[in-house]
Amino acid sequence: MFNSFFLALALNSFGMLLPVQQQSTPAHAVSPKYMSTPTGYVMVLRQGDNVLYELEQLAVNEKIPSASFSGFGFVHPTFGFWNAEKKDYDPKSMRDTEMASMTGSIAWKDDKPALHVHGVVTDKNFNAFGGHILALEVGTGSVEITITVHKKRLEREVDQTTGAAVLRL
Amino acid sequence: MFNSFFLALALNSFGMLLPVQQQSTPAHAVSPKYMSTPTGYVMVLRQGDNVLYELEQLAVNEKIPSASFSGFGFVHPTFGFWNAEKKDYDPKSMRDTEMASMTGSIAWKDDKPALHVHGVVTDKNFNAFGGHILALEVGTGSVEITITVHKKRLEREVDQTTGAAVLRL
Amino acid sequence: MFNSFFLALALNSFGMLLPVQQQSTPAHAVSPKYMSTPTGYVMVLRQGDNVLYELEQLAVNEKIPSASFSGFGFVHPTFGFWNAEKKDYDPKSMRDTEMASMTGSIAWKDDKPALHVHGVVTDKNFNAFGGHILALEVGTGSVEITITVHKKRLEREVDQTTGAAVLRL
Repeated sequence: MFNSFFLALALNSFGMLLPVQQQSTPAHAVSPKYMSTPTGYVMVLRQGDNVLYELEQLAVNEKIPSASFSGFGFVHPTFGFWNAEKKDYDPKSMRDTEMASMTGSIAWKDDKPALHVHGVVTDKNFNAFGGHILALEVGTGSVEITITVHKKRLEREVDQTTGAAVLRL
Repeated sequence: MFNSFFLALALNSFGMLLPVQQQSTPAHAVSPKYMSTPTGYVMVLRQGDNVLYELEQLAVNEKIPSASFSGFGFVHPTFGFWNAEKKDYDPKSMRDTEMASMTGSIAWKDDKPALHVHGVVTDKNFNAFGGHILALEVGTGSVEITITVHKKRLEREVDQTTGAAVLRL
Repeated sequence: MFNSFFLALALNSFGMLLPVQQQSTPAHAVSPKYMSTPTGYVMVLRQGDNVLYELEQLAVNEKIPSASFSGFGFVHPTFGFWNAEKKDYDPKSMRDTEMASMTGSIAWKDDKPALHVHGVVTDKNFNAFGGHILALEVGTGSVEITITVHKKRLEREVDQTTGAAVLRL
């Protein structure tokens, strides 16, 4: 899943060692991944980007107290459905799907960004699948995310009854 | 559907009669259900909460002129598909589904809050279902909703051609 | 697909020639299609409206630099899944579906508004379908869209690697 992400990192590092080749760098390598807006941020990710990692980086770099976001694009997703007996997620990975809808929030836990993200993807037959997102890589295309930032720092805490990590207001 | 909701109400009332037990109240009983943000509100609901009722209460308590919202979580939904012949919804209830996407609006009709809510849920096999939401209870987990408030009070009115309750700008 | 749209245009023109009949104009003919909000616009479209056309008109009329939007309603959609070999979309049209979720963005290309829209629809059996939206007409009901406007003018450009039109920040 993260192969192409680390490959991109490696290529970027390589590029820095060879600045004379900078003019042949593809456009997206020099395009910023996000911009500020009146209500928060817009993020645009490209093929191979790790969506959850980039959102966590945004949270850390911009010191986001808490935020809600929505997005769409073309992705390789991994979903997980909570198995209460196993106390773990049953996972399912797919490739080359349209992300028809992504909805989530950014908060904090133990001083690290804690995301909660759900989504719906569709395949080449237009059938829809989805649920809780465990991992998400951008496919042959892009992912656009709109982030609405709130002022209060929010923490996630484990609900003793359900075991779920719940946003505490 | 509303059993656990009224049970929660009853337990809350009971708790008020026994304030010495307040320290053993679970954390979510004392956590507020929503907070204000620069663009509106964030609402976090817990197991057994009635989502549509809580949104209506928010509209009344905060005198919201009109609003759009999106959300996600874990739910027991009831969907309805309009049957033009019967002039009523054909319903379908599900249990223990991920709410992968919820989109809706708050307006007014006859001085009462009038919601319009659509959603997509997914089951343990990651298959997706959805449509117009008639009822929605939080399952074993939570529901997070982001509400964007508008300034103008909006009313819903019945479209004479289609019979649908339409937002009048 | 656009028949009812042009029929509505024709009827509107006809109405202007016969102002004495204006009092019998259905309410939605005189209701504005959108209103301004603190964060952008809310748009309400009615039966027969062409959703993508109306969003493009909004972008042009209000000189929107860039925007994100979400919506829901009742629609006749046409989806397209990119076929890399044919370098074209494989399309699928449906009728009388609930738009359970619509997510998209407004930007510019060659001085014309350039939309990118994904969505999930559900049928009378509550099964979900979706993907990249090529065309979208409002069915027997309405479509409500919430548009969040950004300040920076954004352009779409073709990614040389994937062939996708990507938002450039």
